[in-house]
Amino acid sequence: MRALVFDDGLRLERNRPIPDPPPGQVLLRTLLAGICNTDLEVVRGYAGFRGVMGHEFVARVERAEDTSLVGRRVVGEINVACGTCVTCRAGRPNHCPWRTALGIRGQDGVLADYFCLPARNLHPVPDEIPDEAAVFVEPLAAASRIPEQVHLRPGDRAIVLGDGKLGLLVAQVLALSGCDLLAVGRHEEKLAILAARGIATRMGHQGLAGADVVVECTGRSEGFQVARHLVRPEGTLVLKSTYHGTMEADLSRLVVDEVRLVGSRCGPFPAALRLLAQGLVDVAPLVEAVYPLDEGLAAIEHAGRRGALKVLVRP
Amino acid sequence: MRALVFDDGLRLERNRPIPDPPPGQVLLRTLLAGICNTDLEVVRGYAGFRGVMGHEFVARVERAEDTSLVGRRVVGEINVACGTCVTCRAGRPNHCPWRTALGIRGQDGVLADYFCLPARNLHPVPDEIPDEAAVFVEPLAAASRIPEQVHLRPGDRAIVLGDGKLGLLVAQVLALSGCDLLAVGRHEEKLAILAARGIATRMGHQGLAGADVVVECTGRSEGFQVARHLVRPEGTLVLKSTYHGTMEADLSRLVVDEVRLVGSRCGPFPAALRLLAQGLVDVAPLVEAVYPLDEGLAAIEHAGRRGALKVLVRP
Repeated sequence: MRALVFDDGLRLERNRPIPDPPPGQVLLRTLLAGICNTDLEVVRGYAGFRGVMGHEFVARVERAEDTSLVGRRVVGEINVACGTCVTCRAGRPNHCPWRTALGIRGQDGVLADYFCLPARNLHPVPDEIPDEAAVFVEPLAAASRIPEQVHLRPGDRAIVLGDGKLGLLVAQVLALSGCDLLAVGRHEEKLAILAARGIATRMGHQGLAGADVVVECTGRSEGFQVARHLVRPEGTLVLKSTYHGTMEADLSRLVVDEVRLVGSRCGPFPAALRLLAQGLVDVAPLVEAVYPLDEGLAAIEHAGRRGALKVLVRP
Repeated sequence: MRALVFDDGLRLERNRPIPDPPPGQVLLRTLLAGICNTDLEVVRGYAGFRGVMGHEFVARVERAEDTSLVGRRVVGEINVACGTCVTCRAGRPNHCPWRTALGIRGQDGVLADYFCLPARNLHPVPDEIPDEAAVFVEPLAAASRIPEQVHLRPGDRAIVLGDGKLGLLVAQVLALSGCDLLAVGRHEEKLAILAARGIATRMGHQGLAGADVVVECTGRSEGFQVARHLVRPEGTLVLKSTYHGTMEADLSRLVVDEVRLVGSRCGPFPAALRLLAQGLVDVAPLVEAVYPLDEGLAAIEHAGRRGALKVLVRP
């Protein structure tokens, strides 16, 4: 099969063997895959990953122990937990210290003709959600993680900082609470996607302050300092960005202002599927390009361009 | 009157005029005052304060517009809020951007024969609480701020990191929840104060991990990194330390582990008074020394010694 592999560098393999699913896992045929900023970080060395890239997908089940699954169109959670450790038994499998993660840690990813995932990670996709939307379930679930962690009230003033792929999803999810939301970004054309849905937008953060909830989605370390100045005392700052390296932070100010910082990562797939099925989130304008898998290297290059939105890959 | 003043340096003034309370404020006679780490930071330049030092006190009302207050023994909240701004009207006067703070910002403090404070800041002290306990109400309120911000469950594993004055109060307050608490410190004799109350203690943090809630009370920037490693994924890290300067933090790890950081400062005086009245917290072993105000400079020097517990000053 074909596969986009990262080891000493990035390359398209054309004769990689179709993987044989280990016990409990199923064989999946990729229908459509998405490229995420994390993939670009992997190419820069993040997490020290080696193997087939990619974790955003919609796929069809090709082979499974439970034959009722075969032929189903599915999306899937990317963390493969051990299921037996203290953390898993405490109901936090996404934090299992022994977990692997699709295309990120110890598990070959989805930018290939075929890949494997445990049957328990899968969620069937309702027919009314096309592949082009279903491929957004993983990042939309990550956006939906925020209201799972933070009680966003309809009367709250919220700011989403960053108009990248994740920021545009987060803003759409937060707007569903009815809160007084402002999306702050740097790209007129991206903010226009939100404005078209009636969400207030703004170029730059100058003069803003006093928000009850701020979500930092810039993907850059400078974003933290800006977000810090936008949140009110006793307010909540949600951190969504992951990047290499550390940063200089004035933690005493967090104490004096009693700010709450909430790290936020993977979220609930069923909620993301419901939002798409109900048409409450529109992902179509987020698609920047669709490449065939044979042009996977070009797809990665395109996704890495400054300001690029979602690049999809179809095997 | 006598007053311990910090301006170009620290000195004991002997002929400072007794202050004249502005409208809404009362004149208080200091019965007993405590020296806090924040006072020591003020002497190092924190907050750029100039004036009479000190904010921990029990006092008697000498003069007040409401004559029913005169003669009452009181403690008092240290933040003097404007009462009319958006933050005050939102119920967060402790975060009023125009606030002054007793002995810290724009309001002369309590290490003097007399000082002033708004009548609304005062809380009468029940007779059963002696001066030597009442003088701890302010830091005990700060410790009681934690259960106000974080829902500490009886089944939680909690760690208090730091066995200084604040850490010893925080550990006593958290233990009242029935949680599985461990106090981690560096001084056998301080931890013994907690052990005498049946609280589990430990010298050093080696081998510890996985706590649901960690409270960082070390007063040092290194404390954050240690606390970070003690808290479990999706756990809560309460920050109590304020100090000069910034530090290097790996915020991406907070995102991946979905840790919640909560800055925590001033707390509820009525709760602290109730805990003392019921004998649920024992502050007596925390008193290291009592100095007369005439020896205020020696008191500050003593409080600044490495490992010193609470130094009190009696006018």
